[in-house]
Amino acid sequence: MQSAKYSQLPTFTQKEVPKDAAIASHQLMIRAGFIRKSASGLYSYLPFGYDVYRKIENIIRDIMNEFGGIEVHLPLLTNREYWDASGRWQRMGKEMMRMTDRHNVEYALSPTHEEAMVALASGFLKSYRQLPVNLYQIGEKFRDEIRPRYGLIRCREFVMKDAYSFHINNESLDVTYSDMRKAYRKIFDTIGIETIPVQADSGSMGGSGSEEFMVASEIGEETLLICKDKNCGYSSNQEKTEYISPYNPQTSNPDINPPEKVHTPDQKTIEEVANFLKKDKKDFIKSVILENEELIVVAFIPGDRELNEIKISNYTGANELLPATAEAIRIITGAEPGYAGPYQLPVKNGQKIRIPLADGRETEKTVFLAYDRNLRGRSGLVGGGNDTGYHYIHLSQERDFVMENVYDLVLAKEGDICPSCGKSLLWETKGIEVGHIFKLGDKYTRSMEVTVLNENGKPIYPVMGCYGIGLGRTIATFIEQNHDDKGIIWTPRLSPFYFYYVAIFKDAEEKAAMDAFYDEVCITGKSVYYDDRKETPGVKFNDADLVGFPYQIIIGKNYLSSGTIELKERATMKKVSVEKGAFLSACREDSIPSLFMD
Amino acid sequence: MQSAKYSQLPTFTQKEVPKDAAIASHQLMIRAGFIRKSASGLYSYLPFGYDVYRKIENIIRDIMNEFGGIEVHLPLLTNREYWDASGRWQRMGKEMMRMTDRHNVEYALSPTHEEAMVALASGFLKSYRQLPVNLYQIGEKFRDEIRPRYGLIRCREFVMKDAYSFHINNESLDVTYSDMRKAYRKIFDTIGIETIPVQADSGSMGGSGSEEFMVASEIGEETLLICKDKNCGYSSNQEKTEYISPYNPQTSNPDINPPEKVHTPDQKTIEEVANFLKKDKKDFIKSVILENEELIVVAFIPGDRELNEIKISNYTGANELLPATAEAIRIITGAEPGYAGPYQLPVKNGQKIRIPLADGRETEKTVFLAYDRNLRGRSGLVGGGNDTGYHYIHLSQERDFVMENVYDLVLAKEGDICPSCGKSLLWETKGIEVGHIFKLGDKYTRSMEVTVLNENGKPIYPVMGCYGIGLGRTIATFIEQNHDDKGIIWTPRLSPFYFYYVAIFKDAEEKAAMDAFYDEVCITGKSVYYDDRKETPGVKFNDADLVGFPYQIIIGKNYLSSGTIELKERATMKKVSVEKGAFLSACREDSIPSLFMD
Repeated sequence: MQSAKYSQLPTFTQKEVPKDAAIASHQLMIRAGFIRKSASGLYSYLPFGYDVYRKIENIIRDIMNEFGGIEVHLPLLTNREYWDASGRWQRMGKEMMRMTDRHNVEYALSPTHEEAMVALASGFLKSYRQLPVNLYQIGEKFRDEIRPRYGLIRCREFVMKDAYSFHINNESLDVTYSDMRKAYRKIFDTIGIETIPVQADSGSMGGSGSEEFMVASEIGEETLLICKDKNCGYSSNQEKTEYISPYNPQTSNPDINPPEKVHTPDQKTIEEVANFLKKDKKDFIKSVILENEELIVVAFIPGDRELNEIKISNYTGANELLPATAEAIRIITGAEPGYAGPYQLPVKNGQKIRIPLADGRETEKTVFLAYDRNLRGRSGLVGGGNDTGYHYIHLSQERDFVMENVYDLVLAKEGDICPSCGKSLLWETKGIEVGHIFKLGDKYTRSMEVTVLNENGKPIYPVMGCYGIGLGRTIATFIEQNHDDKGIIWTPRLSPFYFYYVAIFKDAEEKAAMDAFYDEVCITGKSVYYDDRKETPGVKFNDADLVGFPYQIIIGKNYLSSGTIELKERATMKKVSVEKGAFLSACREDSIPSLFMD
Repeated sequence: MQSAKYSQLPTFTQKEVPKDAAIASHQLMIRAGFIRKSASGLYSYLPFGYDVYRKIENIIRDIMNEFGGIEVHLPLLTNREYWDASGRWQRMGKEMMRMTDRHNVEYALSPTHEEAMVALASGFLKSYRQLPVNLYQIGEKFRDEIRPRYGLIRCREFVMKDAYSFHINNESLDVTYSDMRKAYRKIFDTIGIETIPVQADSGSMGGSGSEEFMVASEIGEETLLICKDKNCGYSSNQEKTEYISPYNPQTSNPDINPPEKVHTPDQKTIEEVANFLKKDKKDFIKSVILENEELIVVAFIPGDRELNEIKISNYTGANELLPATAEAIRIITGAEPGYAGPYQLPVKNGQKIRIPLADGRETEKTVFLAYDRNLRGRSGLVGGGNDTGYHYIHLSQERDFVMENVYDLVLAKEGDICPSCGKSLLWETKGIEVGHIFKLGDKYTRSMEVTVLNENGKPIYPVMGCYGIGLGRTIATFIEQNHDDKGIIWTPRLSPFYFYYVAIFKDAEEKAAMDAFYDEVCITGKSVYYDDRKETPGVKFNDADLVGFPYQIIIGKNYLSSGTIELKERATMKKVSVEKGAFLSACREDSIPSLFMD
């Protein structure tokens, strides 16, 4: 910002920490007067906050342009017809805010702009000659989060940079995707936050590949798994991580006993049955039964692991699989919940099942049996008996049950083998997503029937990539990584001002000299914020540390006598005494940090 | 923008003029690929359009900062509770878009931010010492216009710069208001559009004064009245213009006949009755009867004029006065519609009237009688007889009817006497509002109960000003003022590029030389757009004129032989032949216009 005095530009700092502010960035942004809450998940930017926001916006814009992005700006309201075409009007559920206009036309308050951007591009993209093209915008998004929290980290209205690239083929997409990976690294480096790029699930966006830029944080809602071997470099969102089992099929010494039905009265959980039978959980087959309006999914996985629900959703193409009702489980297994198993399961994969509804009618669902790949070839297994109070022991996969749909179904976790190097183990950390890049394929161009002519004059669906960065989150995570118990610690690149100026004077003569010195600093080109309030020095020092500009000028009793000022570096809290002329030279030469070197 | 080639940054021009584009700016912005429609009243900015938008945004930001504005950014969703406090949740009607979140909380998609800004300010404004403060933002607004049209001039989602100032008293407000007038003049001068500042009605915003910045345009929806004497300088929105009657009370030769009831069968309009009675319309008393849910308003005005409905709404404090029903008119006058008059009207000012509703119930309304000030003291008047088929002649105001509520009620028009100089006449033009400044008084701080302590420690309601500029409208009106039949004519200040570069080559050698020259121009610091499509020169010349960058470089057969290029000035369509070295010097010295001087 341009140099200013408190009397021209107040700080809006406050002492109270809002009750709902559980994390440092949220507390500090409120206390330091950078943002203010207006309603659940809705925040205003105050002057300092908006200045930081604009600096980040400009960094992102410049680097997007450098990497070939072309800036546009789409309306925030998007027609329902676009969302109907892609099927997301329903699928987005309650997270998508909607409104109806005076003519009863429905619109989304866009949570994202894939459909709108495809509709826009369809107006001018006609030929392969126009591709690739990467259109981006920086603007508001709306998501009706169930639990907005952590200030700018999870709010309901927020600014994103969202880019959408269009390509004639996957090779061209790969090039732009790779450019965007580089652009994102450069953006986060320039801003000064450390991110971990991780492989991620493409989720409801569709498509074939995606990578998240995560900031490690205790309050992160995502779990990351990272290879302990830095040379390997593998890092992945837990949802996406492939599970590598340490247990191989017992080919050398298989259990050749026939299946034996054993009575396991009142033993329902694997824990209970394992204790009762004195078997190891890893030799159990865990059955997880889920359903939605069309499907009943039975997933069989190793008994010592958890099901990765994202993976099963992706394999089945189903959204919102919920735990099956006891009623549905009884129909599927012929037994009470807790006794499902792959051996002699009464239903087959693909079978249609009729399930009674509460109102007396029936609904039809299709059975989908899914097997984790780590069960293949194993013997000596224990599974549910499909009979209340019974289990089978001595199960052998190859002999006793066919695995029709075989997948990687296990939720990986800390301590598992790295799926990339196959040697080191994974460690776990929590993370906040600040950026996300996706390969979308032709999901949106195909569903919205947008084609371009290829080199042979034949219409094809262009493939797309999309690339997002949350600006508010980026600010918040920067503060998570750059603060102490006194306040925020800004870098010169992002700070609203370079200097915080505190003058301690006894009389009008001293004040006049210090006001004059402020003017001298202003014209060096460094921006200065002069706290000219009638407050005690203590109040000003505290606010200076809280708002966290990189350097503080403290000008007091030595100024008139010796011509020296005190300079404090916010990051280190180091103070040095500097002669006025040397200080002004350092301002002009942009060498203030050197004044703190020993 | 940074210099670019078509192959990096396409133009998105199109030949077709959209059917709904009735005006030049709308047609040209679509044809030149600056904007594209996504739905009724919703437009996307394409790359060139967004670049112009950002230039205007930055001009506004810089000048707002120069005049003491402090930038913030508020959520677009604003809580219903704010709007309930000011009473505008109801009053805004269908023009305000609304949405309900997953917890059934209601929000407006803000059409304006007075309430939200007062709520924000209430969090930190505590003392007179913090005032004045002028907070502004640049962001989206939403208005559900009944008839969105004219492209960016009347759309439903649009960007505004909106500023809100807070003051301890009206003197302080006057200072900031006057600063904002200056800032607005500077903003529009810098952008390069001619505006007419006019006195305006404060309308539903409340408050005591306002001024609109209008762009004269045939398609303007506002009517302006301007004094023909430029030295007088008066200009006003018709809604606001004071009416000065040329007819004085006939004090020297009054009509002293007593009122006489005359039969005027089937003569209902003043035109008809005037012809029938052979009287002048100006001597009639026109009665206009309006109502809303609380009031029945009878306005008496000179028979040759129209009622100014904005004025009567302001005087009564009523919103949405509609023509009264025949039923209501019968109850008020005892006669069929067409025979109302001030003499022997059966109802009194302030009387409560019961009016039957369609469902058989009754509603009570209050009678409000309003008299135009120009009726005062006049005699020889004709008025309705409050009896079907009858009028009175020889009415004398002082003798025959009391004027309880006397106002200026007449809609002024072209040819009226200027209310400022009282000598010259007014002329009329249509205009588009691009900016508006208001004195709001304490309407919002009072209704939302926000106080600050004054110098005596006493809580007072700060008074406010608000100041808006529509950014999209500003772009559109610039184009209305700066185009010809070929396309847009940008100034260097707003143009996406300085040069449009067209190379006409025969072979690879010529092309290589022309590509190299493009690179040379780029490094002079002037931005160049190189149309490197495989299209005919004719197509490129047309597009160059259409997108309208200030200068075109046409480089062709003379380049290799003589080292000259052709330069065309878009505004004048003048062409000059320039030697390469001289041209590059002129680029570096920013003296291209001088090449076109004779």
